[in-house]
Amino acid sequence: MNIEKTYEKFERLMKRINNLESIEGKLEWDKFTYIPPKGAEILAKQTGLIQGIRHEILTSNEMSKYLEELESNYDEMNQTQKANFREMKRTYERNVKVPKDLIEELSEAKSRGYSIWVKAKESSDFSVFEPQLKKFVELQIKYADYIDSEKNPYLVLIEENEPGVGTLDKLIGNFENLKRSTIPLIKSIQDSNVDINRNLYKKSYSKKKQMKFSRYISEKIGYDYNRGRIDESIHPFTVGFGPSDVRITTFFSEKNPLKSIFSTIHESGHGIYNQGLPEKYLFENIGSYRSLGFHESQSRFYENNIGRSKEFWEFFFPQAKKIFPSQLREYSVDDFYKVVNEVKPGLIRIDADELTYNFHIILRTEIENDLINGRIEVSDLPKIWNDNMERYLGIEPKKDSDGVLQDVHWSCMEMGYFPTYTIGNILASQIQAKMKKSIKNIDEKIRNGEFNCIKDWLNKNIHEKGCLYNTQYLVKKVTGSDLDTSHHIKYLTKKFSELYCL
Amino acid sequence: MNIEKTYEKFERLMKRINNLESIEGKLEWDKFTYIPPKGAEILAKQTGLIQGIRHEILTSNEMSKYLEELESNYDEMNQTQKANFREMKRTYERNVKVPKDLIEELSEAKSRGYSIWVKAKESSDFSVFEPQLKKFVELQIKYADYIDSEKNPYLVLIEENEPGVGTLDKLIGNFENLKRSTIPLIKSIQDSNVDINRNLYKKSYSKKKQMKFSRYISEKIGYDYNRGRIDESIHPFTVGFGPSDVRITTFFSEKNPLKSIFSTIHESGHGIYNQGLPEKYLFENIGSYRSLGFHESQSRFYENNIGRSKEFWEFFFPQAKKIFPSQLREYSVDDFYKVVNEVKPGLIRIDADELTYNFHIILRTEIENDLINGRIEVSDLPKIWNDNMERYLGIEPKKDSDGVLQDVHWSCMEMGYFPTYTIGNILASQIQAKMKKSIKNIDEKIRNGEFNCIKDWLNKNIHEKGCLYNTQYLVKKVTGSDLDTSHHIKYLTKKFSELYCL
Repeated sequence: MNIEKTYEKFERLMKRINNLESIEGKLEWDKFTYIPPKGAEILAKQTGLIQGIRHEILTSNEMSKYLEELESNYDEMNQTQKANFREMKRTYERNVKVPKDLIEELSEAKSRGYSIWVKAKESSDFSVFEPQLKKFVELQIKYADYIDSEKNPYLVLIEENEPGVGTLDKLIGNFENLKRSTIPLIKSIQDSNVDINRNLYKKSYSKKKQMKFSRYISEKIGYDYNRGRIDESIHPFTVGFGPSDVRITTFFSEKNPLKSIFSTIHESGHGIYNQGLPEKYLFENIGSYRSLGFHESQSRFYENNIGRSKEFWEFFFPQAKKIFPSQLREYSVDDFYKVVNEVKPGLIRIDADELTYNFHIILRTEIENDLINGRIEVSDLPKIWNDNMERYLGIEPKKDSDGVLQDVHWSCMEMGYFPTYTIGNILASQIQAKMKKSIKNIDEKIRNGEFNCIKDWLNKNIHEKGCLYNTQYLVKKVTGSDLDTSHHIKYLTKKFSELYCL
Repeated sequence: MNIEKTYEKFERLMKRINNLESIEGKLEWDKFTYIPPKGAEILAKQTGLIQGIRHEILTSNEMSKYLEELESNYDEMNQTQKANFREMKRTYERNVKVPKDLIEELSEAKSRGYSIWVKAKESSDFSVFEPQLKKFVELQIKYADYIDSEKNPYLVLIEENEPGVGTLDKLIGNFENLKRSTIPLIKSIQDSNVDINRNLYKKSYSKKKQMKFSRYISEKIGYDYNRGRIDESIHPFTVGFGPSDVRITTFFSEKNPLKSIFSTIHESGHGIYNQGLPEKYLFENIGSYRSLGFHESQSRFYENNIGRSKEFWEFFFPQAKKIFPSQLREYSVDDFYKVVNEVKPGLIRIDADELTYNFHIILRTEIENDLINGRIEVSDLPKIWNDNMERYLGIEPKKDSDGVLQDVHWSCMEMGYFPTYTIGNILASQIQAKMKKSIKNIDEKIRNGEFNCIKDWLNKNIHEKGCLYNTQYLVKKVTGSDLDTSHHIKYLTKKFSELYCL
């Protein structure tokens, strides 16, 4: 059988589906940037329609027929076609295996969840959110069972964002490793006595100048403003409609310029990934990013491994001083390097430093895993949360809004999302280790502001591959091994031991 | 037969079609405001898909079936349902009556047209665009013939934008009247000797301050920033996704603040119309604006009848002086009123004053009418254009780029669009005449900055009606008569006779 004709028809549907997703992305960008105060309802209806049409095409009889035909003639496809088939099949199955009434129940619960969570958080009262969260856990377990009843249900949820992440045991093992090795490091830092100059937080920084500096850094490290733009939003994000239109946002704190600087570097990392995806596969599945963990590895790599390095600031600090002369007058590059790397265990994940951040994620991952596997009860969450915060970081929330209620994720039933953040951190350090071997004198290059070699390396080894390979294979191809915390542990230990003279 | 079920299904398709159109509008807004330099190709693909899906639904067998069923049970529908049916039927027919290969030929020619026109305009060489325009005229004649072979083909094209405009003879008669009555007025003005202070064009105006003043005026006259926003674009425009998200743009000339001021007032007029459409009919045909002429009547009414009136500036001039103290120091409100109303016959339509603007439109309408009815040849256009400019305005273009090649419209096959501008002018004066009878002391109110009564009147009599009535009926209902130039002629004659002491 000649499958070319079938593949052509399949390709047409696939491109429609991904084009619709990119339109949805544009609506989302609008939602968080320039929408007028009362525009939300229209936008919700526009988004709803696009999602509806996308879902209709994805779950259509045609799609089912083409996938079947391609599957039974699998060997006739070339590598690109096979990858597109593989990715679409997975998405298709995730959408058709779940009965319609469960999907409706899920989306109804989701749409209620956010406003209930907002109320609970405002009054810092977990009991307001508790019944909702209980319902969510039940629904998520049911959902996972429909997708794959043979797998651990929590793994099924993680795979929504991180397909091919490997076994749950291995992932949890990696997280355990990280925990075991870095808890003592945090304790030593807390006992140490290094002087950090925090005076920069006492000054004021105009939005305009912060934006100027943000643009300068992001452009210098390789984010392309001919194929992108930067705007302000309350929560920074990146959205790509295709490699030649990728948009990032940042946010400004008048008293803390580090917020906009590191948000911008983080989102630029995401943006550089999206801009580096293969243009020729626009709206094909193979043209998409590999996984959320991979995406996060790019943003974290730029934000932390590169953006919080000494070399980086040796290059950028003089420029920072030019833009903020009075505010940074008393700072040397060494002082600045210290203050941007200050380790300070805190209650709030999004304010966490590079080292303690992982504990916020590990704590959430453990809770999600235990919840979905029925080992703990929703009603016990505040206590479990607080106990573990005490255990990992030595601090305990005084109220649920600083604890179990702090994140938006569970309010919209995102379970299995948090792990991707730490997967990103682990992967970033693996990538860095590999890159150091391939790019000679990389520290020297960063010190001289030569960032192209880094972008080119990432483009060639990760970005241009899109979804050609599955996640595990790409991790191995890029880094030489499976997901492995040892590089991240080594990186953190070396960096913070030096910084805190341990 | 119970048609409720059919109507429900029809309604679902209708809402999808209009929702898709609103999404297309958002993509268009993006295209002219914030798109990155290289984002055009992705955007074209997004727009193409939305248009494609919209066209599929509009011309589907389901739609055909529902329209048929509703038609044969017409009397069972209520007034709203009848209006939705009427409007959708018209759009449906415009889309299905034309064979597919002609539609493809049209869209192919269109996509080629723009770049050829740009080349022709840049080299000011009509012969470059001539073959293309010839082809356009042929295609447009064919197209009109498929839509309605019994009607004058030019009327068919006008009705694309102005459904139910009445007969072509009547429209042309109105334009003739206007021409006859105002040519002598222009001549008298040219012979008059009134002193106009043009020094304001010698100063500089910052973009920021122009934007501030623009926002101030637009908000004051009733444009709602909770349901809208203003941005900058090269060509100002308005786009509404629904009454609660309507966006306007303006543009800035460093040396001429009147550009941004009157663009903003003009677009605010459009915006106020869109914001005033019936919210409860979101995404129904009845919830849409009546016609382009009606839309233009609202923008022109605010821009000219209100925005260039003495009373208007008696209120706003003190504020203008506050924002631009040094630039307007030597101006009194009388001087300012004169300079914003200066009549100066010129070659370029978009720079024309209120009085001579209509001649630019009448000239184009006459040419289009003669072309589509085969009375003149495309090759004769430059000569005809130049002769008529001389005849109407006493000036002759030295080059085609200032004459027949100046407008973008013909490059994308928009024929039958120009008349809507002058229809808007005529209608605006009819509306003003009627409004003066209903709102007591309206001049006094404007002088005091009370603009709500005007907006409320327009809301109630025009905006809230949406597409409930056909165009002719709405004109009559609002103004008490058919489209009739006498009010516009009276308005122009009185205003400019006084201004130029004739």
